[in-house]
Amino acid sequence: MDAGGSDTVRRFLDVRSRTDALAERLSPEDQTPQSMTEASPAKWHRAHVTWFFEEFILRRDPGYTVYDETFRYLFNSYYETVGERHPRSDRGLVTRPGVRDVTRYREHVDAAMVAALESGRLDDAALDLVELGCNHEQQHQELLLMDIKHLFSTHAFGPVYVDREPDVPGEVAPMGWREFAGGVHEVGAVGSGFAYDNEGPRHRVYLEDFAVSDRLVTNADWLEFMADDGYRRHEFWLSDGWGTVNQTGWHAPGYWREEDGGWTTFTLSGRRPVVPDEPVTHVSFYEADAYARWAGARLPTEFEWEVAAGTLGDARGRLLDPGRCHPGRAGSAMVGDVWEWTASAYLPYPGFVPANGAVGEYNGKFMSDQHVLRGASAVTPAGHERITYRNFFPAASRWVFSGLRLAR
Amino acid sequence: MDAGGSDTVRRFLDVRSRTDALAERLSPEDQTPQSMTEASPAKWHRAHVTWFFEEFILRRDPGYTVYDETFRYLFNSYYETVGERHPRSDRGLVTRPGVRDVTRYREHVDAAMVAALESGRLDDAALDLVELGCNHEQQHQELLLMDIKHLFSTHAFGPVYVDREPDVPGEVAPMGWREFAGGVHEVGAVGSGFAYDNEGPRHRVYLEDFAVSDRLVTNADWLEFMADDGYRRHEFWLSDGWGTVNQTGWHAPGYWREEDGGWTTFTLSGRRPVVPDEPVTHVSFYEADAYARWAGARLPTEFEWEVAAGTLGDARGRLLDPGRCHPGRAGSAMVGDVWEWTASAYLPYPGFVPANGAVGEYNGKFMSDQHVLRGASAVTPAGHERITYRNFFPAASRWVFSGLRLAR
Amino acid sequence: MDAGGSDTVRRFLDVRSRTDALAERLSPEDQTPQSMTEASPAKWHRAHVTWFFEEFILRRDPGYTVYDETFRYLFNSYYETVGERHPRSDRGLVTRPGVRDVTRYREHVDAAMVAALESGRLDDAALDLVELGCNHEQQHQELLLMDIKHLFSTHAFGPVYVDREPDVPGEVAPMGWREFAGGVHEVGAVGSGFAYDNEGPRHRVYLEDFAVSDRLVTNADWLEFMADDGYRRHEFWLSDGWGTVNQTGWHAPGYWREEDGGWTTFTLSGRRPVVPDEPVTHVSFYEADAYARWAGARLPTEFEWEVAAGTLGDARGRLLDPGRCHPGRAGSAMVGDVWEWTASAYLPYPGFVPANGAVGEYNGKFMSDQHVLRGASAVTPAGHERITYRNFFPAASRWVFSGLRLAR
Amino acid sequence: MDAGGSDTVRRFLDVRSRTDALAERLSPEDQTPQSMTEASPAKWHRAHVTWFFEEFILRRDPGYTVYDETFRYLFNSYYETVGERHPRSDRGLVTRPGVRDVTRYREHVDAAMVAALESGRLDDAALDLVELGCNHEQQHQELLLMDIKHLFSTHAFGPVYVDREPDVPGEVAPMGWREFAGGVHEVGAVGSGFAYDNEGPRHRVYLEDFAVSDRLVTNADWLEFMADDGYRRHEFWLSDGWGTVNQTGWHAPGYWREEDGGWTTFTLSGRRPVVPDEPVTHVSFYEADAYARWAGARLPTEFEWEVAAGTLGDARGRLLDPGRCHPGRAGSAMVGDVWEWTASAYLPYPGFVPANGAVGEYNGKFMSDQHVLRGASAVTPAGHERITYRNFFPAASRWVFSGLRLAR
Repeated sequence: MDAGGSDTVRRFLDVRSRTDALAERLSPEDQTPQSMTEASPAKWHRAHVTWFFEEFILRRDPGYTVYDETFRYLFNSYYETVGERHPRSDRGLVTRPGVRDVTRYREHVDAAMVAALESGRLDDAALDLVELGCNHEQQHQELLLMDIKHLFSTHAFGPVYVDREPDVPGEVAPMGWREFAGGVHEVGAVGSGFAYDNEGPRHRVYLEDFAVSDRLVTNADWLEFMADDGYRRHEFWLSDGWGTVNQTGWHAPGYWREEDGGWTTFTLSGRRPVVPDEPVTHVSFYEADAYARWAGARLPTEFEWEVAAGTLGDARGRLLDPGRCHPGRAGSAMVGDVWEWTASAYLPYPGFVPANGAVGEYNGKFMSDQHVLRGASAVTPAGHERITYRNFFPAASRWVFSGLRLAR
Repeated sequence: MDAGGSDTVRRFLDVRSRTDALAERLSPEDQTPQSMTEASPAKWHRAHVTWFFEEFILRRDPGYTVYDETFRYLFNSYYETVGERHPRSDRGLVTRPGVRDVTRYREHVDAAMVAALESGRLDDAALDLVELGCNHEQQHQELLLMDIKHLFSTHAFGPVYVDREPDVPGEVAPMGWREFAGGVHEVGAVGSGFAYDNEGPRHRVYLEDFAVSDRLVTNADWLEFMADDGYRRHEFWLSDGWGTVNQTGWHAPGYWREEDGGWTTFTLSGRRPVVPDEPVTHVSFYEADAYARWAGARLPTEFEWEVAAGTLGDARGRLLDPGRCHPGRAGSAMVGDVWEWTASAYLPYPGFVPANGAVGEYNGKFMSDQHVLRGASAVTPAGHERITYRNFFPAASRWVFSGLRLAR
Repeated sequence: MDAGGSDTVRRFLDVRSRTDALAERLSPEDQTPQSMTEASPAKWHRAHVTWFFEEFILRRDPGYTVYDETFRYLFNSYYETVGERHPRSDRGLVTRPGVRDVTRYREHVDAAMVAALESGRLDDAALDLVELGCNHEQQHQELLLMDIKHLFSTHAFGPVYVDREPDVPGEVAPMGWREFAGGVHEVGAVGSGFAYDNEGPRHRVYLEDFAVSDRLVTNADWLEFMADDGYRRHEFWLSDGWGTVNQTGWHAPGYWREEDGGWTTFTLSGRRPVVPDEPVTHVSFYEADAYARWAGARLPTEFEWEVAAGTLGDARGRLLDPGRCHPGRAGSAMVGDVWEWTASAYLPYPGFVPANGAVGEYNGKFMSDQHVLRGASAVTPAGHERITYRNFFPAASRWVFSGLRLAR
Repeated sequence: MDAGGSDTVRRFLDVRSRTDALAERLSPEDQTPQSMTEASPAKWHRAHVTWFFEEFILRRDPGYTVYDETFRYLFNSYYETVGERHPRSDRGLVTRPGVRDVTRYREHVDAAMVAALESGRLDDAALDLVELGCNHEQQHQELLLMDIKHLFSTHAFGPVYVDREPDVPGEVAPMGWREFAGGVHEVGAVGSGFAYDNEGPRHRVYLEDFAVSDRLVTNADWLEFMADDGYRRHEFWLSDGWGTVNQTGWHAPGYWREEDGGWTTFTLSGRRPVVPDEPVTHVSFYEADAYARWAGARLPTEFEWEVAAGTLGDARGRLLDPGRCHPGRAGSAMVGDVWEWTASAYLPYPGFVPANGAVGEYNGKFMSDQHVLRGASAVTPAGHERITYRNFFPAASRWVFSGLRLAR
C-alpha cells in the first residue's frame, strides 16, 4: 500500500473501468429492470458502488460537493445507519437517473476520489475504506453479471450478452480423492492483505480425518443423478429441499431446458447445449446436498474446504473473462469456475466483531439462515478471490454460479 | 369514409404520430418498466398497437414481410386466438427490442399500412379493422399516460412528464340537479360512425324518473367527505369497499398525500397542491359509491347517464391536451375531465354478439365483475369520446382518471 | 300474522327445531372446523342464528338476561353497527363455547323468545324482525349443509352425513324452449308476505322477446361439454373465467373426480357415481356462462327468469329433505333442485333503500361484484323459496348447490 | 433394559397414560382445530404417537390386526418412506375419527403393544424402536401443550387449560458469569442410555475460552431491553430479524399484551401479569440474538452450552408439572424452565448417519435452516431431558417455551 498514492489511484481506476466495460454491452433498456427482488438493475449496481465511495469517503470531506442528494436514498442498499432508502423490490422502477446520468455520477465521484487520493489527505482508516470499496465494486461486478443473466433468461428469445465460440466437449478424468489428516487446524484470514471482516478472526478448529474430491461435479455427473431419478427420490433430500422441489417443480439445474431430447442451458452467450465436461452450475444448496447423498458422500465443511485448498498452492480455475463469462472444463484447481456449496451455515467466527459504523453492516448482520460457498466463479473478477473468502446465499438460490465438490 | 383513400391515410398517420409525440418526453429507461401488473411499459404500448395493425390487417396480405416474428409473442396482449404470448406481469423485463427498434417497427408497419391503404386493395372488413386499430391506439394513448403517471408516482422524487403553470384556484357553483322523466328510453350506439361492439345493439330500457347533478364532484366536495370521517364510517361503504379500505389504508384519493397540513396530489407535472375546484380524480368505484351515499345520493346508472348526456348537445370538458394532461375546473359538460363511475355492472346489451375471430376478444370477454365508467377524461384523445362509450374497470381501480357525478 | 301469538311461536319453534335436527348427525368434532373462509363451523351457524334473535329482539327488553356477553363478539357475522367481532377466517378456532354450551344458549334464547312472543309485548317492527330471524335461520340451514359438505369433501375417506339408497338413473326429455314476449314487465316482491329488502321495490323493466329452456342442464349435458373440450377451449370463456380455469385446473364440476374411467361426485351421502339425469350442480358462474356459450345460448337475466317462473304456477322441484340433501331428476319446475346462475349482476333495484339500523346491513352492502342466482336448491328449506328471491355469490363459487338453465 | 419385560411395559404404559392425562382437560372441540400449520390438533397428536408404535413395531407382526387402514394416511406426520399422507396444513379438518375413536385406537394399540412386549418376541431393534416411540410420545406431550397454548391464545376470552394460584413475585440475583477454559472438548451422546441419532457421534470440538451467565435472562431484564428501544434500534438485529420485526410488528415477547399500563402474558392458566423474576419465554432466535447484542454479550454455541452444563451435576429447573405448565423463578440450573436458543445452526455432527428405513427421517432431514436450542422447558416431561439433547426450530418461532442465557 502506498498510503493513497499512485498505486491506489491505479487500483481504484482499474476496478472502476472494469465495471463500465461490463456495462458497455447493455442498452439503457437492459440496465433498467429488476427481474426478481434478489437481483438489481445494472444501472443500480453502477450507481450503488459509486454511492459507496461517496457515502463512506467523500462525504467526510467538507469540501466535497455531493452530486445529487436524492442518490443517498435511491442507491443505499441496506445500510440502516445511513437512513431511509428506496424499497429493494422496486429498484426496477427508478428510471431516473438514467444511464447517462449514472455515467456522469460515476465521473464526478471518480474525479473527486482521484483528487482525494492524490492529495494525501486520506488517513489509514479512509484508505482501508477505499480498498473495501474496490472489493465491494468487484463483488457487484459479479452480481451485475448474475443479474443480467437472470434477466435475459426470462426473455423468450434469449438475448446474447457476449458472443463466443461454442465449446468443444472433451474428456474429464474420473473423480479421485485427496485425503487430509484431522486434528486442530487454523482457519481464517491471517491479517496481511485485504480480507472482509467475516473472514476473521483466524482461529483453531478441530477436524476429523477427511477427503475431498479432486475435481468439481460435472454436468455429465449430474445427468447420471437425473437419470437415476435423483429429483424424484425423497431419500436424498433435506426436508426443506424436498418441499422446494415439489413446490417449484425443479427437475434439472437452473437455466436448463429439455429440447429435442437433449438438454440446453442459458448462458451469457444465449441458449447452448449442456457441455458434459463443464462443472455443473446454478444448482441450489438443496440440490448440491442431495447429489452428495446420492453419490454416497457429503459436502465438505467450509473449514475442510479451506484446509484442502490451502495445500494446493496458487492454482486457479477460470475467473472472470468478459469475453466468456462461463466456466470451462472441470480441472484440478479449487478456486474458480463455480462457487462451491459447503455443509457450513454462515455464522460468525469466535471473537468476530463487526466494524464500527455503517460498514459494520457489510457482512455481520446476514449471519443467519444462509449457507457458505467457497472458491470463486467464472464471473468473479481476478484478484478478488481468496481461499479464506466466505460467500453466502440462502439454500434455494440458483442464480449464483454455484456448483459443488464432494467430501467424505 | 373514403374506402381507404387519403382521408383514411391521414386519419391513420395522425393517430400514429400522436402516440409518438406522447413518447417523446420519455427516455428509453422511462419506457421500459411496468409498475404493476395492470400497467404496461410505454415501449410495450407503442409496439402493441403496431402489432395490432400487423396482426389483423397486414398479415392477411401474402406479400407483406413480417418485421420480426418474435413480436407476435412479445406484443400480443390478450388474444387467445392468436396464440401463446408473453406473461402480462413480466412485460417490464422485455428489454429487447429497445426503444429504437420499436420505433423502426412502427415505421415499417406505417409504411406497409400506407401502401395497403393507398393500393385500394383493402375490403370493407379490413377498413373497419383499420378504424378499430386507430381507436385501439387512441385508447392506448390514454393507458400510456395513466401508466406513466403510475410509474412516476412510485419515484420518491416525483419526475415531471410535462411542465406547466400552476393552476389558479377559482370558484365552482354549488351543485344543482338536472331532472329527467322516466319511461322507455333507447340507449346504445346507433350504427353510423365508429363504435365498439360493446356499445350495441341499440335497445330499449325502462327508467324511473331521475336527476343527475349538473357538475362533477370536486376536490373541495371530497375534502368535506374526508373531514366528516367518510373513510372511517362503515355505514357509507359496500362490504367489499370497506374491506378494501381497511386492508389498504386508503384515507384519501389515489396519489394524494398530506404534507405540511395540506394535501398534495401527484400529477404528470409532478407533485402539486390539490386544487379545490377541480373534479376529484383517481377514486375507485368503492369510494365514489361511498361518497354518493354520504351525500344522500347515489351514482347514476350508465343508462341514466347516457340519457342525460344525450340532452346536452356537444359540450365537452377537457380532453387530452399533451401540454397539460390534467383535468380543469369542474364545468357543466358531461363528457371530459374525468371518467365517471356509474352504478352499472359491465354486462352485454340484449342481443350482443362479439365479432368473429380474434377481434371478438376485444371487449366481450371482459363482461364480468367490472364497473362501467362513462364520459371521458383529460387524457382521452379528442375525437375518441362518445356518449355511448362504455369504459370499464374493476371496482378497486384508482389509476384511471376517474371521478363521479351524483344521481337521485 | 297473529301479532306474535301462537302461530308465530309455532313458526319460530318449527324453524329452530329444524336447525337442531340438521346438527344431530354431527359430532362435536364435526361442528368445530371451518374448511375455508367462506364457510363456517356448524356450531357457529347454530350460535349465530341464535345471537340474531338475542341481538335484535331480546336485548331491547331491559328485563332480558344476556346469556353470555362474549357471544356478541364471537357470533356476530358482519354487522359493523353492532361492533367488533371475531375474525371471519378464524371461526374454526373458537372451541369454547362447545356444542353443549351452544345447545344451552339456544334453549335460553328459545325460552326468552317464546315468553316475549306470548307476552304480546312485541310491536310490529319487532315481529317483523322475528320473521326476518326465522328466514335468516332457514338461510343458515342451507349454509350449514353446504359447509358440512365442503368440510367432509376435504376428508380423504369421504364421511357420510346421511345414508340413502343409490339413485336409479332414468331418462330426461330433450331440452325444449318456453317463449316469452318482450315489453315492459313488472318484477320484484309485491309486498304481501315476507320478502328480503333486496327483492324490492317492485318495478318495471323492459325486456326483449326471450325464451328459457324447459328444464335444467343435466350431468349428461355437461359430460358432452367436457367431451367437446369445453374446459380447454378459450372461446367459450369470460376472461376472468379462463384465468380461473387455468389457475385452478378446473376440468369438471365441483366435487367431481374421475375414477376407474367414470365420474363420481361427493354428496352428503358420500362419494357416488355421477347420475346423468340429475341437474349439474356445484358449477361456478364462469362455468355456467361458458356452457351456455358452448350450447349456442346464454344465461337468462334475473328478470327473464322471474317473468318465466311467474307463469308456471306453484310447481316446485326438490327442496330440503333431510334424508336426502341432494337434487333429483331434472324436471319441469323452475324452483328447486339447484340454484340457477343468471346473467345479472347483483345490484340494487331502482329506489332500493336498506332498512335502518344494523339489519340494514343484511343485504344491501353486498351489492357489488356478485352474481344473482334464482330458484332454490335441494338444501333450501321448504317455505323459504320465492320466485322473487335473489340469492347471490361471487362468480367463482362452487360450494353452492348451483346449476343453470339456458336462455336465448 | 429388561429385553421387553415388565420394566419396559411399565415405562410404555407410564408414557402413554401421561398423554391421556394431558388430554383430559380438553373437550372434543378443543382437540380438533389446528391454529397454524406448525401446530397440530391435540387429537392428532394422540393418534399420531399411537400410529408410530403401530407403524414401526406392530405392523411387522403378521398376526397384528390393523385398527383402521385409513389411519396410516391420516396420522403419518412426515415419513415419506411410509407413503402418501394427509396435508399438514389441513389436520384441523379431519373430524373423523373423533376423540372417542382415537381413545379406542390408543387402547387397541396399547393392548397389542403390551402383548408384544410381554411375549418376549421383540428383538433388540424392535425394543429400541419402543424406546424411540416413548421418547417420541414425550416430545409430542410438549408439542401438545405448546399447540393448545397457541390455540387458546387466539381466543378473545382466554380459555384456561389448568387453574393455578398466581405467582408471588420474588427477587432474582444479579447475573453473574461462569468461566470455562478453551481447548479440545468432547461433545455429543456417549452411547449408554437413550439418545436421538442427532446427538451423536460423540466427537471433539475446539473451543476458545468462554463464559456463560449463571442464570437465564428474566422478564425484568427483557423489560429493560424494551425500555431502551430494543425493538426499534436496528443495530442490535440480524438483517432477517429486523425484517421480521418490521413485518410482524413484534415489540414484546410472544403472548405479551400491554393492558392498563402493565404487561400481561397468555399462559395455560389464562392471561396473567408478567412476573419479573421468571425467565423470559416465547422469544424467537432473532429476539434472543438481538437481546444478547444489546447486553454486550452473545448467545453461547451449543457446544459451549453442553460443556458448561456438563460441569453442573444433576441440578434441574422446572420440568413438566401438569398442574402448572409454566416456568418458575429463574434459578441456577441449566436444564429446565425454558429452552435456550444457542448461536448454533442445526447441522449434522461429523460422521452422522441417519438410521435405516423410515425412522431415519426422524431428525436428519431437518438439518438446514434451523437453530439449536438446548436444555428443556416447563412443559418437557421429566426424564425426557438430557444435556446432549438438541432441540431445533426456525429462527422466527415463538410458540416454543424458548428463552436465553448469555455468553461471552
